[in-house]
This record gives sequence, C-alpha cells and structure tokens, in this order.
Amino acid sequence: MNRILELDSIERESVDASTKGFPHAAPPIPLGEIGAQGWRLLDGTLPFPQAVIKDSALAHNHAWMRDFTQATGVSLAPHGKTTMAPQIFAQQLAAGAWGITVATVHQLAVCVRFGVRRVIMANQLLGEAAVAEVVRLLASHPDLEFYFLVDSLAQLRAIEVDAARHAPSRRLTALLELGVAGGRTGCRSRGEAMQLASAIAASDTVDLRGIECYEGLQLSGDSARDAAFVTGLMAAVHDVALACDREGRFAGPSIILSAGGSAAFDIVARELPTRLSMPVQAILRSGCYVTHDSGFYARMLESVKARSGAQWQAREGLRPALEVWSQVQSRPEASLAILTMGKRDASFDLDMPRPQWQFRKGRDARPRPAPDDWNVTAMNDQHAYLRIAGDADLRVGDLVGCGISHPCTTFDKWRMLFTVDDDYGVTGAIRTYF
Amino acid sequence: MNRILELDSIERESVDASTKGFPHAAPPIPLGEIGAQGWRLLDGTLPFPQAVIKDSALAHNHAWMRDFTQATGVSLAPHGKTTMAPQIFAQQLAAGAWGITVATVHQLAVCVRFGVRRVIMANQLLGEAAVAEVVRLLASHPDLEFYFLVDSLAQLRAIEVDAARHAPSRRLTALLELGVAGGRTGCRSRGEAMQLASAIAASDTVDLRGIECYEGLQLSGDSARDAAFVTGLMAAVHDVALACDREGRFAGPSIILSAGGSAAFDIVARELPTRLSMPVQAILRSGCYVTHDSGFYARMLESVKARSGAQWQAREGLRPALEVWSQVQSRPEASLAILTMGKRDASFDLDMPRPQWQFRKGRDARPRPAPDDWNVTAMNDQHAYLRIAGDADLRVGDLVGCGISHPCTTFDKWRMLFTVDDDYGVTGAIRTYF
Repeated sequence: MNRILELDSIERESVDASTKGFPHAAPPIPLGEIGAQGWRLLDGTLPFPQAVIKDSALAHNHAWMRDFTQATGVSLAPHGKTTMAPQIFAQQLAAGAWGITVATVHQLAVCVRFGVRRVIMANQLLGEAAVAEVVRLLASHPDLEFYFLVDSLAQLRAIEVDAARHAPSRRLTALLELGVAGGRTGCRSRGEAMQLASAIAASDTVDLRGIECYEGLQLSGDSARDAAFVTGLMAAVHDVALACDREGRFAGPSIILSAGGSAAFDIVARELPTRLSMPVQAILRSGCYVTHDSGFYARMLESVKARSGAQWQAREGLRPALEVWSQVQSRPEASLAILTMGKRDASFDLDMPRPQWQFRKGRDARPRPAPDDWNVTAMNDQHAYLRIAGDADLRVGDLVGCGISHPCTTFDKWRMLFTVDDDYGVTGAIRTYF
Repeated sequence: MNRILELDSIERESVDASTKGFPHAAPPIPLGEIGAQGWRLLDGTLPFPQAVIKDSALAHNHAWMRDFTQATGVSLAPHGKTTMAPQIFAQQLAAGAWGITVATVHQLAVCVRFGVRRVIMANQLLGEAAVAEVVRLLASHPDLEFYFLVDSLAQLRAIEVDAARHAPSRRLTALLELGVAGGRTGCRSRGEAMQLASAIAASDTVDLRGIECYEGLQLSGDSARDAAFVTGLMAAVHDVALACDREGRFAGPSIILSAGGSAAFDIVARELPTRLSMPVQAILRSGCYVTHDSGFYARMLESVKARSGAQWQAREGLRPALEVWSQVQSRPEASLAILTMGKRDASFDLDMPRPQWQFRKGRDARPRPAPDDWNVTAMNDQHAYLRIAGDADLRVGDLVGCGISHPCTTFDKWRMLFTVDDDYGVTGAIRTYF
C-alpha cells in the first residue's frame, strides 16, 4: 500500500490501557507496533468487547468498489464520516478514490491534517468558525480542492459575510444541493435551484462548480420503486445542471455532479453521468461499502447485485469486515444469554447486532457459525440480550462474534479498532477521529 | 473543591482541533487552560455542534443528591459509566460519595488510575484478561476496595480458575446479584441464590460481601406500580440477605446491600437498609442524576418527588446540566429546519433531543426559550430534523440548544465537553474515557 497520506503521527502515537480494547496490563506502545505484538482475539489475552476489522474483507471491498467504479466510469469520493479513520482513507485513495467526502469542517480539518487534498463536504458550510477555518485551510494548503453544499440564499449570504472578515486567498467552490420534498436539505424545486444558481454565479466569494443530491434517505428496499425514484432524481440533477450550463452559471473548468450512498450506488453510477458544455465529473460518495455490514447494507446490496447484470451477479459481493465480539457473562434463563457489549460498543440504530460466530476456548480451534435462531433483541448501555433455544450449547464465558448493521454508528464508539487476519490474529490498529 | 483525585495528567494533556468541539484554528493547549481562554459558546468563535455542561446545574445536582442521601442514610456510589469523567468522579467524591460504580474492568482501571479507591462493578466479573487485571490492581493498590457481581456457579468457577493463574494477593470480594424473571442478569430464584451463596462461601478465592440488584429496567413510570415492584424487589434482597446471614455466608466485616439507578432511587433509599448481624451498608448507585436530563429522567423525577413527601416536593428538583447546541443549516420547507447535530452528537436511544433555547447573534443578548411546539423528530448520523410552525421565526444560522434524554449516550459521543457558566462562557473542559 502506498503511503499516500501522512500517517506517521498516528503510528507514533502512544496507546495505553485507557483506550477501550487495549490489553489491560500491556505497557503503552506506539499504535504502529500493535501488529507486531502477536495478540490474538481468541486466546484470552484481550479484553472484551472488541470491535475488529477483517483485513481480507476490507481489501476485498476496496478492490470490489474500485472495479465497480472503473466499470461504470464514475469517480469515488468515499464518505469519510463512516470510519473517520485516516488509515482507511489512505487505503481508499490508494485503491483509486478521487478524494474523500466529509460531513463537517472538523472532519475536513482531519482530512487535511493527514494529507487529503480533494474533499467534498456533502453538507452545508455554515457558521463563523467553520467559514473561517475553510478560508484558513484554503490559504495554507494551495493544493487543497474543497467543495461544499449550498441550498439557500440565506446560507450563501452568511458565507459571504463570514468569509469577507478573513480575506479569502481564493474563491470558495460550491455545489448546489437539490433536495426532495419531505427530505433533508436541498432546494425543493427547479425554480428555487435556478434562482440560487444565479445568485452563486453573481457572488464575489463563491463559485458554482456543480450539482449535488443524496438519494439514500428515500430508499425503500423495493428495488423497482427505488430504481424509479433514483432515476427520477438523477434526471432532475441533469435538468438543473443543463439549465445552469446553458445560463453560464458554472465557473468551470469542469462540472461536478455528485450523489450516491452505499445502498443504490449502482443506479447512481449508471444514471449520474451526462454531457454538458464542460467536462463532467460524476462523483459517487458511498461510505459504508468499505466495511459493508451484516444488516441494512447487506440487504440493499442484494438489490444492487440483482440490478447490475450477470457479471456482478456471478461475482462475490462486498464482505462484512466489521465484527463486535463479546462474552457470555450470564445465562440467567435457558433461552437468554447476556453479552458484555452494549450501546457503547455496537450499532443499534438500524438493527440489533447479528450473531454470526461462537467460540469456546478449549473446545474450538476456530469460531463456529452461530445458529440462525440466535437473535440479539435489545441492548442496554453495556449489555446485550441474546435470545437462544433453551437447549442451545452456549455457556458463561463463551465468545460470540456479531456482525453489525450500519458501520458508521459502530466506528464512532471506538477510538481504536484492531485489524485481524482470517484467524483473528491482530495485525494492527485503526485510529478514529470522531 | 478538594483535589480528591489525581487529575493533573488530565489538566496537562494537550488538546487540539482534532478533538471534536475544540476551536478549529486555536493552537493546542493543555486541557486545564481551556477555562482561561475567554471562549464563549454564543459569540461565533466555537464550532458547532457543542455538548456543554452547565456548572451551576452540576453543582446543584451534587448538593441535591448529597442532601437526599444524607436524609435517607444510604451511601452513594454514583455510576461512573454515565460520564466516564474522572473530573466529575472527583466532584462526586468531594460531595460525599462513598465510591464510584463501574460497568467494566476497563472503567475500573480508569477509576484506579485517577485515584478512586472504592469501586463497585455492578456487573459480572468474567474473562481471563479481566480477572487478571483485577488481581493485578488489587496487588498493586493495597488500599483498593473492589466489589463485583456473581450470578452463576459457572461464573464463580471461571473466576477461580482464572485467578489461580495469577496468584491473587488477597481474596476477591463479590456481591451476589438477584435478578428478575424476564430481566437482565441475576439469580432468578431464592433457591438459586442460596445455592450460589453457599458456593461463594466455600470458595478459596472469592468472599461474599453482600447482595445486589438493579430495579431500573422494570420501571414503567406508573408510580404506584413502580413502588410496588421496587418494594418487592428490596424485600427479596432482604430475604436472601437474612438467609445468607443466618447461614453464615457473608465474610464480613460488614454486609453491602446495593441497588438503585436514577429513576426510583427514593424507593431504594427508603426500602434497602435493614438490620443484619453485621453492620449493613446500603449503597445507591444512581448515575444519571449528576447531569440529570430533559427527557426520561426528568419524567421519572416527577414521580420521585411526588413519592418523597412535602419537604422534597417543595424543593427544586435536579436540574438538566447537559445541553447540545447546533446551528440551523437549512430551512428547506417552512415547517422544517435541519440542524448540524446528529446521532454522533446527542442521545437518540430513549427520546430525541428536546429543543429548549434559540439564539440569534445580533438580535439576542441571551438565549430565548424555544417554543413548546418545536420538536426534533428524527436524526441521521450528522443531522437533526426540527419540526416547527410554518411561520416560526427561525433562520439559517440561528443556534438551537437542546436538552437530551439519557445522559450516558450523549457523554459517550464526546471525548471532551466544555463546562459553561450561566451566560455560556466556557469555564473549563471535561475529558471522558470511553
């Protein structure tokens, strides 16, 4: 892997047992030396719970998405908010990503600190502190390309006022956000969008560089309905982009069109590109693909594959790379086991964690698949409720490995996650910046 | 405030803009110097979102709970998992707390590192790494008192085996956990409990020091029903404690009885104490009281006050000390504003954040109360949906301050939270260890 970002400060950073997951009695060591310690998830030396990333699955997903975007001709700016891990950003860039997407100026600053030089903030730039920081970063990093969203005249005027206080060294570059009635941010009508485009084009501070939208919040899982919705939304993007192009609203030298989460990126990749008077750069922003999951995105990927033709149907899809392991601390009733993980350790916002592995030291050489009828039905802050058959062979002390649903909300619960090989030997550690 | 814990390493720790909430352009400074910077939440210099703790409310809650526990004669070991902030632990101990409660051995180790010397782990001790760490901490800190829960013979045997590998310097001290059918951990029957008590009493590694239970998960908010349930549970604790006492199962020199979250601590405080053949220490473990909240615990406190007689009804209750402030980034529809905070910033597991304040720089000298009809109806990872009247005076750029429901799941989203005075001037910073 090319050292495409400046990760030395992460690797040199001392980690100690005050970081959740680090072995209690181990002396502090630089994060970059963790992979050389010979630690193993299943041999009893590590505390539980542990969130781990499987190297092989991560590498598979990097290659899969590289192949997918290459086959479709779109660029990828993976959403960094998923992992907020510069080490993973470096892998994504090394696998061909055009840049990194973020949600906040804090996340932008983390990207810039570690050397990312193309960033889309798929969110409104707003606020005195945020605008000042963007102006500062653009001045101190002449090679930084940074695009943010604008969806209202009020926001545009606020940026102009706030930027003027800091004498920007160059013009700010915005994407106009198209929204959906009943949705989140974004202009709700063509008229509103065109009025805003005209105002941006007339701004002495901000350039209009493209059109953006996000289809992910309206997806239903019904493939035909989702395809119709996303196709319609991409047509609306084209319509506004074409009108802006005709009216000379884009500053150029190219026009960015961007959309795409990890649930319907196939339709986005197919429908987003178009021809305009300047070169068009179609940029997908999928984030969750990188570790994938065992819940929401696993279900959505089935639709992606079904829609993507024989070549992609025959091929293995994305692999779930993120697992949370915990221990059975009690089996107070025959059909109930309590696990040592909770809301602080694993996603619970879209689905509960999905039990996938069981392991008993002394009995098992490697994890066994968990029975299909095991279900986590609830979590407290520090506990999970695992429902099992009354005669299930599961004991106090056994380990249970769960897949998760929605990687974003597991990553943000860990300051450091171990990476593991296929035998759950620890190969290194990933540092997050939430 | 007495420097009752060793907080120097926290105050000396350098904080920089890679920590969410820290001003983007400020140079790194020791955390202990943050209060001297003259930062203000509402003047535009700080990034949003921000989670802040109001000093006056925190101090009020410390005093309120000190008075409440003194009036009832119970000891307090506040649950540290709520904040995982040694600086707040120090305030709790200075306000008279007997010790600190934790949920994991990682949390125990954080307590010990900063000088806490009485810890209840209101959870099962289990696992080779965890048991080894407990043995190590007990050996290296002769003044450490540490109690953990046991609820099964399988767990007891596993502890004995794991502890034997590390030659414990002294006996481990356990509380037997009583549970509730359909509940979480804990022995489900008196017979099971007595059998386990007998096994602990016969153990060559573990002493039985008391009985524990947790009433919080079965509370309904129906005050009469909750009172009957908690009273019954405390009677079951007494029944098992009395039987263990008669059978000589307790190792002494005192017997600990412990229960109590932050929702029905009044009933626990009234019902838990009893007389046995050795001195009885009744220990309440409330955690959320310390910052209180504007949701679940605010509702439960109304029942606590209603049950607690004229003196407590006349007195002001706990105050919500924790607020999350964000900015209106878009008002894409008349009755919808999108805020710059999401699942990464504020609790969403029991209720959505509750809008309490609005502030517009230039118009307002101080925050105005938010109208009662403003509601956060949903959150994404980085956004909140605020529903308002179509004619509400709320603009892009305005600040909105929200109370939260369930402090635990807001604290764990912030590595550092600013403390503020009543005018939202930043007085310092609290570091968390999740």
